[in-house]
Amino acid sequence: MASGDIVLGTNQYGKAECRLVRVDRDRPEHRITDLNVTAQLRGDFTACHVDGDNSRVVATDSQKNTVYAFARQHGVRTPEHFLMTLGAHFLDTYPWVEGGRWEAETYAWGRIEVDGAPHDHSFVRTGTEVRTCVVQKDGPATWVVSGLRDCVVLKSTGSEFHGFPRDRWTTLAETDDRIMATSVTAWWRYAPTGQDELEALDFDALFADVRATLLEAFADLHSLALQQTLFEMGRRVLERHGVVAELKLSCPNKHHFLVDLEPFGLDNPGEVFLAADRPYGLIQATITREGQPEVPQAWASVPGFA
Amino acid sequence: MASGDIVLGTNQYGKAECRLVRVDRDRPEHRITDLNVTAQLRGDFTACHVDGDNSRVVATDSQKNTVYAFARQHGVRTPEHFLMTLGAHFLDTYPWVEGGRWEAETYAWGRIEVDGAPHDHSFVRTGTEVRTCVVQKDGPATWVVSGLRDCVVLKSTGSEFHGFPRDRWTTLAETDDRIMATSVTAWWRYAPTGQDELEALDFDALFADVRATLLEAFADLHSLALQQTLFEMGRRVLERHGVVAELKLSCPNKHHFLVDLEPFGLDNPGEVFLAADRPYGLIQATITREGQPEVPQAWASVPGFA
Amino acid sequence: MASGDIVLGTNQYGKAECRLVRVDRDRPEHRITDLNVTAQLRGDFTACHVDGDNSRVVATDSQKNTVYAFARQHGVRTPEHFLMTLGAHFLDTYPWVEGGRWEAETYAWGRIEVDGAPHDHSFVRTGTEVRTCVVQKDGPATWVVSGLRDCVVLKSTGSEFHGFPRDRWTTLAETDDRIMATSVTAWWRYAPTGQDELEALDFDALFADVRATLLEAFADLHSLALQQTLFEMGRRVLERHGVVAELKLSCPNKHHFLVDLEPFGLDNPGEVFLAADRPYGLIQATITREGQPEVPQAWASVPGFA
Amino acid sequence: MASGDIVLGTNQYGKAECRLVRVDRDRPEHRITDLNVTAQLRGDFTACHVDGDNSRVVATDSQKNTVYAFARQHGVRTPEHFLMTLGAHFLDTYPWVEGGRWEAETYAWGRIEVDGAPHDHSFVRTGTEVRTCVVQKDGPATWVVSGLRDCVVLKSTGSEFHGFPRDRWTTLAETDDRIMATSVTAWWRYAPTGQDELEALDFDALFADVRATLLEAFADLHSLALQQTLFEMGRRVLERHGVVAELKLSCPNKHHFLVDLEPFGLDNPGEVFLAADRPYGLIQATITREGQPEVPQAWASVPGFA
Repeated sequence: MASGDIVLGTNQYGKAECRLVRVDRDRPEHRITDLNVTAQLRGDFTACHVDGDNSRVVATDSQKNTVYAFARQHGVRTPEHFLMTLGAHFLDTYPWVEGGRWEAETYAWGRIEVDGAPHDHSFVRTGTEVRTCVVQKDGPATWVVSGLRDCVVLKSTGSEFHGFPRDRWTTLAETDDRIMATSVTAWWRYAPTGQDELEALDFDALFADVRATLLEAFADLHSLALQQTLFEMGRRVLERHGVVAELKLSCPNKHHFLVDLEPFGLDNPGEVFLAADRPYGLIQATITREGQPEVPQAWASVPGFA
Repeated sequence: MASGDIVLGTNQYGKAECRLVRVDRDRPEHRITDLNVTAQLRGDFTACHVDGDNSRVVATDSQKNTVYAFARQHGVRTPEHFLMTLGAHFLDTYPWVEGGRWEAETYAWGRIEVDGAPHDHSFVRTGTEVRTCVVQKDGPATWVVSGLRDCVVLKSTGSEFHGFPRDRWTTLAETDDRIMATSVTAWWRYAPTGQDELEALDFDALFADVRATLLEAFADLHSLALQQTLFEMGRRVLERHGVVAELKLSCPNKHHFLVDLEPFGLDNPGEVFLAADRPYGLIQATITREGQPEVPQAWASVPGFA
Repeated sequence: MASGDIVLGTNQYGKAECRLVRVDRDRPEHRITDLNVTAQLRGDFTACHVDGDNSRVVATDSQKNTVYAFARQHGVRTPEHFLMTLGAHFLDTYPWVEGGRWEAETYAWGRIEVDGAPHDHSFVRTGTEVRTCVVQKDGPATWVVSGLRDCVVLKSTGSEFHGFPRDRWTTLAETDDRIMATSVTAWWRYAPTGQDELEALDFDALFADVRATLLEAFADLHSLALQQTLFEMGRRVLERHGVVAELKLSCPNKHHFLVDLEPFGLDNPGEVFLAADRPYGLIQATITREGQPEVPQAWASVPGFA
Repeated sequence: MASGDIVLGTNQYGKAECRLVRVDRDRPEHRITDLNVTAQLRGDFTACHVDGDNSRVVATDSQKNTVYAFARQHGVRTPEHFLMTLGAHFLDTYPWVEGGRWEAETYAWGRIEVDGAPHDHSFVRTGTEVRTCVVQKDGPATWVVSGLRDCVVLKSTGSEFHGFPRDRWTTLAETDDRIMATSVTAWWRYAPTGQDELEALDFDALFADVRATLLEAFADLHSLALQQTLFEMGRRVLERHGVVAELKLSCPNKHHFLVDLEPFGLDNPGEVFLAADRPYGLIQATITREGQPEVPQAWASVPGFA
């Protein structure tokens, strides 16, 4: 058994879920940015933990103030840029802050149509999915991991599952035609770690293309296993975008069971399904580049998996 | 104090949340219908409640079987038609069933784009909102109430609020420019109660037009109060659709507070807002036609308000 | 088809979900009251809906102010008393307010034990369930409906289900021993409608006894149907409490399926169950007193069923 | 930019959220165990990801079967023991399975009282909190991390916060008396990694004592910062239990704002608070033993933080 003194290990603190809506109203066509921002600082905060000495504790309330003030001062070019600006501020301002973690969820809005034309200042939420981003700083290094979640997709055919081991614990029938449905959670790490290189990236365009690529791969791969679909989704993103170092996918297999209608004297040729809740398959994979070193600290505290 | 014997009052029972996905695969372009169906029966079930005599209790499991079997036998023309077909079956088959309530939520899917074209059998969930429907039968009468919920909208200008009473309990400042945001829950009752008239309605087209009309009214009314916006939304629907007897709206006022940036030496000309969670305003109104009798039984058990 | 002018029907508005925590600190043993309060007014608000004239619109912000101020001025004797005090204030103060609806959820807290003794000012949330209350006023009449929800109970035996009709749509096997589990939502209406009679009631004691009675009935009735259990739960409450006029129960049948372990060469004598999510049975019943008139307006806008 | 071939990185797959209820009915006093089990395998599954070759893919359905079958075969001594038994099975049975992750949530039930005595087979859910456990295997090593979440606690006094840095971005007032409330998420890692040593632990007793210790520390430390409270909570656990190697806490600061009642001519001596939702403080810390090596792989995929 370990027997050393009891000490503080890794730690971080801040303000979570600052709901920030910014309106750009310089033109008649307003633009809105809808974010949920979390800011957390890392550094030597031992005195606070051990003795309740707050002399280094930038209040979480102050961190929140900074989020809203910076949205006015600097605008929100992209969520990624906004988080990097926040992070640089804290490291530049407080010498004892050695790093931190800044996260944003972004919600998508479209314009309401009036008389067939998009309205100037009236919007409707679009899509169930959320765009995500975690920026972490550790001294001079910056890791940017972007992603999406709750992107729900379904194929009504073009999915098989067979050839798996059969033993005492196997009851599942093989199938050469099933519904495949999932809710995609994806995270991709951008390769650059220097502020300047990162600043130069067009994160909005990258997000849009990664998302489209993921969906396209899901759609047009004839799938023999959800694992194969995940790998193909990630492979295509890495193929198209050298700036993406690696990508992690976490995808539930949302089972749709073909309902047995024989007891009622009816057939069911792939038409009527029961969408089940739990349990569900859970497939998680990293798609990366050969020989590339792992960067666990970039993934530390990204909601995900090993 | 009341002193009579203790007796059974109104009651209903059934199977809730049968998740049903139907695939129409007669053409290369599959079509999917994604429903959450609840079925409940009404009638004289006193023996079961008082004595545990189940001889009249059509098992909730059997009700569920019927949902899936009917999706194969009859297809799903629209959610409203599907629920009416279910309801008619139960009243026709079991003499002691005098009425019931059938409800469906419908989830919207779009096609994934591959090489710029919509894919034949790959879909992505669109929108946060849910299409809803409650069909109730009481003997020969059928009430159809359709709706939508979780339709989140926001105007970044074009909304004022002033002229309200000021007294000891008032601290709110007047404003002539604020963000107005809400999550629309709407329910509208179709006027016909006869099966034939109802069967003839194109509920999908009606839903699409009512939704578009609600959004358009939200967008283009310059609003002096959320109440005024609700009334206008309902008024336009009733004006366009004689077949809609009345409409109920329940809309939270999702407050977006302009953040005070003065302590930081910054102005904030309508740009940076905090989106609050709770408390929220809650505005609920019925828009109806003058002289038209109220039909409380049609609204009984529609999730809503008085 | 209806053809009258389009007009405003029933409506109400206010502030929802004011999260209020009151600390009573007059003694070393603090006491906390944790409420979620919704206040809504009814009356003639046509001018606001039709013309955006807010001269009668007591701002929802002011309604919220009143909730917090009254918690200081009047304390919170019970949730029911607090809501009645709020309601009386609005009707007394604003002549055009003719009625309203005030709702509270109450969350239960216990004391943390330190060295075996309950701590003076440190608390831990107990139970999954929520105590609920809706007070409605319509001129001089006051209806108080109290309840609870999310009270999850389970019997591992003592529940049968058989004797139900069998036909083409029936596949369920009969059983003389199953798990019965539900999440109880109960609402009971207090008979008095006069402010003085209502003021005299000890709502905390009544709540505690109704809750205990409901649980006891669930536990000790050998059940032939969930319907029978519901009726017995309600019957006992009405028997014990003349002041309770009627009671409504809404209970999902949370299915626990005995897992078929035969494929693995194992029996399963009532030991291993799969707890299913959806679909679930849904049983809803009113237990009332014979000859007692129905009071639909008391139930209007109580989240429930027909 | 990285330029290697695109390859599969870390991955795992399995069946998530198998809801398992086991009834021990050997005595008249039944005992129920209510679990939500997730099973995931790790190993070389490249062929499946790259080529759709499932010959090594133990179906997630088979993993689920094993969960239920093992609950019958081996019973559930504690959640930790149950997961270790599952894990050993998969590594022993399938040579290509090199490790995995097995997780369980456990829900607490108490007995319903009937005539003042606990009932034999009728239960009610107690507490909002969930007991958690993640067992990971990597060849011969086994890591057991146990925890709890959603344990909501509040102190109505005995909490101060002052002495933090003040600069341009600071508006928060200092306080020497505030409400401190949080929802505790705790994870603690057991030091042994050998199956035999782990088998010998009484995880139920350990859980009960760790939980009580955490609550007691929360209650009786006069707190100068939530960070200080977290450290003290962890310190006490490590002090009492040499078998616990380290502990991680993630605690939102659930702000309770004293409501300003001055505009209404009322004082507010620490009595009336608004419980806010978002944003909230978020304090996360590891409490460990000096000189003890970090074991990141034990924490890999434990829902938590860096």
